[in-house]
Amino acid sequence: MASESGLYWCETAWLGSALATPHVLVQVEAGAITGVLSGVECPAKATRLAGLTLPGLANAHSHAFHRALRGRTQVGNGSFWTWREQMYGLCERLDPDSYFRLARAVYGEMAMAGITCVGEFHYLHHGAGGTPYADPNAMSAALVAAAEEAGLRITLLDACYLHGGIGQVLNAQQRRFSDGDALAWAVRASEAVEALSGPAVRVGAAIHSVRAVDPAGIEVVAEWAERHDAPLHAHVSEQPAENDRCIEVYGVTPTALLAERGVLRRQFTAVHATHLAGADIGLYGAAGSTICLCPTTERDLADGIGPAWALRDAGAHLALGTDSNAIVDMFEEARAVELDQRLASQVRGLHDSVSLLRAATVQGHASLGWPEAGRIEVGAPADLVSVRMDTVRTAGASAHTLLETAVFAAGAADVHHVVAGGRVVVSDGRHCSIDVAAELGAVIGELVEGFS
Amino acid sequence: MASESGLYWCETAWLGSALATPHVLVQVEAGAITGVLSGVECPAKATRLAGLTLPGLANAHSHAFHRALRGRTQVGNGSFWTWREQMYGLCERLDPDSYFRLARAVYGEMAMAGITCVGEFHYLHHGAGGTPYADPNAMSAALVAAAEEAGLRITLLDACYLHGGIGQVLNAQQRRFSDGDALAWAVRASEAVEALSGPAVRVGAAIHSVRAVDPAGIEVVAEWAERHDAPLHAHVSEQPAENDRCIEVYGVTPTALLAERGVLRRQFTAVHATHLAGADIGLYGAAGSTICLCPTTERDLADGIGPAWALRDAGAHLALGTDSNAIVDMFEEARAVELDQRLASQVRGLHDSVSLLRAATVQGHASLGWPEAGRIEVGAPADLVSVRMDTVRTAGASAHTLLETAVFAAGAADVHHVVAGGRVVVSDGRHCSIDVAAELGAVIGELVEGFS
Repeated sequence: MASESGLYWCETAWLGSALATPHVLVQVEAGAITGVLSGVECPAKATRLAGLTLPGLANAHSHAFHRALRGRTQVGNGSFWTWREQMYGLCERLDPDSYFRLARAVYGEMAMAGITCVGEFHYLHHGAGGTPYADPNAMSAALVAAAEEAGLRITLLDACYLHGGIGQVLNAQQRRFSDGDALAWAVRASEAVEALSGPAVRVGAAIHSVRAVDPAGIEVVAEWAERHDAPLHAHVSEQPAENDRCIEVYGVTPTALLAERGVLRRQFTAVHATHLAGADIGLYGAAGSTICLCPTTERDLADGIGPAWALRDAGAHLALGTDSNAIVDMFEEARAVELDQRLASQVRGLHDSVSLLRAATVQGHASLGWPEAGRIEVGAPADLVSVRMDTVRTAGASAHTLLETAVFAAGAADVHHVVAGGRVVVSDGRHCSIDVAAELGAVIGELVEGFS
Repeated sequence: MASESGLYWCETAWLGSALATPHVLVQVEAGAITGVLSGVECPAKATRLAGLTLPGLANAHSHAFHRALRGRTQVGNGSFWTWREQMYGLCERLDPDSYFRLARAVYGEMAMAGITCVGEFHYLHHGAGGTPYADPNAMSAALVAAAEEAGLRITLLDACYLHGGIGQVLNAQQRRFSDGDALAWAVRASEAVEALSGPAVRVGAAIHSVRAVDPAGIEVVAEWAERHDAPLHAHVSEQPAENDRCIEVYGVTPTALLAERGVLRRQFTAVHATHLAGADIGLYGAAGSTICLCPTTERDLADGIGPAWALRDAGAHLALGTDSNAIVDMFEEARAVELDQRLASQVRGLHDSVSLLRAATVQGHASLGWPEAGRIEVGAPADLVSVRMDTVRTAGASAHTLLETAVFAAGAADVHHVVAGGRVVVSDGRHCSIDVAAELGAVIGELVEGFS
């Protein structure tokens, strides 16, 4: 990612407080913010950003390739588990070349939605039958290259995936996900750190789930993450069946199992955490871990409504992810946290706009290992996302309701200007280097030909 | 609404079946569809409509003025009932002139979202303290004029509102809603039919709720609707407190009370119907009534998830409404029906794309008294809504997943061309006669000045 300099004047900007601040001048040098002034006129040489400017949005949980399933998995009925069969069918068609092209377009869509940092939870490591590519990290390299071309920072969350379920062998499709054992995963992940890390790339670890990694493997991944001072993510309790099986075999919930094996700490992010016991909530709170909610996916996959409010009150941090990329819209994810809590509780206002914006920005970045990002302040990466406040969706906001209007009424289509690491990635609603919609159409068309 | 003629060629169109049909030529004369051909090339003189063309969308439940609350009611916390206090505060600021200007802009936003027919559930009838305007239907006339200028058909659902709750007198703000008694309401509603009905305007009846109309009044409104062969709507069981009070005083649920008083029949639409007893569901099914779901509002107001699936299976019809207009996006309403059912049931695919599209089109129109509309077929009003399938949200759909992609991934921002009654209302994503966003900003700014 080229690092650039410039001067931006924001009509209004969110600097982290309860209200947007008018007339904010942001100075950028070598990709970082070096000055922030409020209440000033727009200098002639500054780029004028209309509407509300937010820090870059962090998408803390993505499986880029799922974007090709958009619409396709809505035919007929079924469950999370029948959906997974369709997703596996798509997996079979991907190789480093096609995944690069797909991910570049998907990350382009994310950039247009104001996402400047993506956490790619990556488990499709190997070739047919599980045979490694000549470069065993060829798929990871494809994702990193795709993010770079799309203009996003990326945290590649290299996922360990060893079993087809608790006590189950891998099926033919899942073999592509596995390194064979946890130590082989650790060797490959260490190579990924060496080969791929850079100014806009960090490599973290992921335990796919307690379904796919046994307790000894969980310990290996957790130790690797601690030794590398790297973020560690895991899918946790997205579906009740995972809990039932975990309790049956191990006698404890997935969260308790992860806690026993040293996973739960500040740099850990549990993805979903939908079906939790009361004690699980306390464990996350005590550890100061992050919970990455993916509400549009959790709706889509019939997961249920997780205890977001209780987790937050217990001391856990919330982040947001687009996960299956059935929708790529962080505003929709943010408001869905609150709106789905309202459906479950019949109470309004458990999560206010500021707490939802924090989840979408600073807390998401921290979850991905960029604690310095997601804020408009000196020293942070120069990530600026401008949202039009004069579209039919956002018109009518007052100075004191800009944040509420953005969170509860704006959409990805209202993002008009995106700066990531000082580089202009989206201007006037268009991606500066990629014809994103055309590329999405072309690569998905090629991948799904004859696929149902 | 001017009625016009023309020839439209749709890249693909939904003609009511399970798949979109390619290359559809639609002939329009005097505002109605006079020919539909599929599989033909685009004639030189036809207007080419890219993407997927749907019949006009029917928004079966709107309170236009609530649009001015967008964002404002998301500050702090509370309940449906504290939200209602804010809504009443806004009511006080409206008069026929300002409501005309607000509604024109709101209906413009609806047109841009592909809504060609709105059901306006209207109860803000009178001036300060409940004093009628010189024309007692001045507010209704303002709404009708606003719809006409925005290019929409309207069913004005003239609501009877007599009490501040079961056994409670009206408060100062509610007095503007009341005609004093049900017979006075009927006289005024009959005058509205005479004065306002037209080719693009129908007048129906509404019982605000069992909270606001006593059983004798409910009978009067139901008889009026039957005599006028008019649609009849009512808010039903949006909140548990309504049920509790109704059972306490009348010994039956709101639905059972309405059934006892002759309300439940085919031309009746229950709005929300969130908290129903099992017997209530059977009553709606047996009557063949419509249930108007307003999922984005039901999320926003912490109402809960209604039994949409059970109602449909019992034989009730589903329609959709934007209600509080916190969001104006019928695609979001349509998918929210299914997605919220998934959250409640952990099953996917209870409502497929075709059934959701039917709710958004033909069933919504039937609920509003336009049974001939909401379909692309000879004899129907020429209402055509074209959705781009080449945006970042919709790109990648196949011929056999166009409907799923539209319902589950498109948004109001993807609507690019709207024809209503043969007249082009929206072209290339812009309203043809109104600068909608600017008008929204201006009139809302004026209304909410100093309002919190």
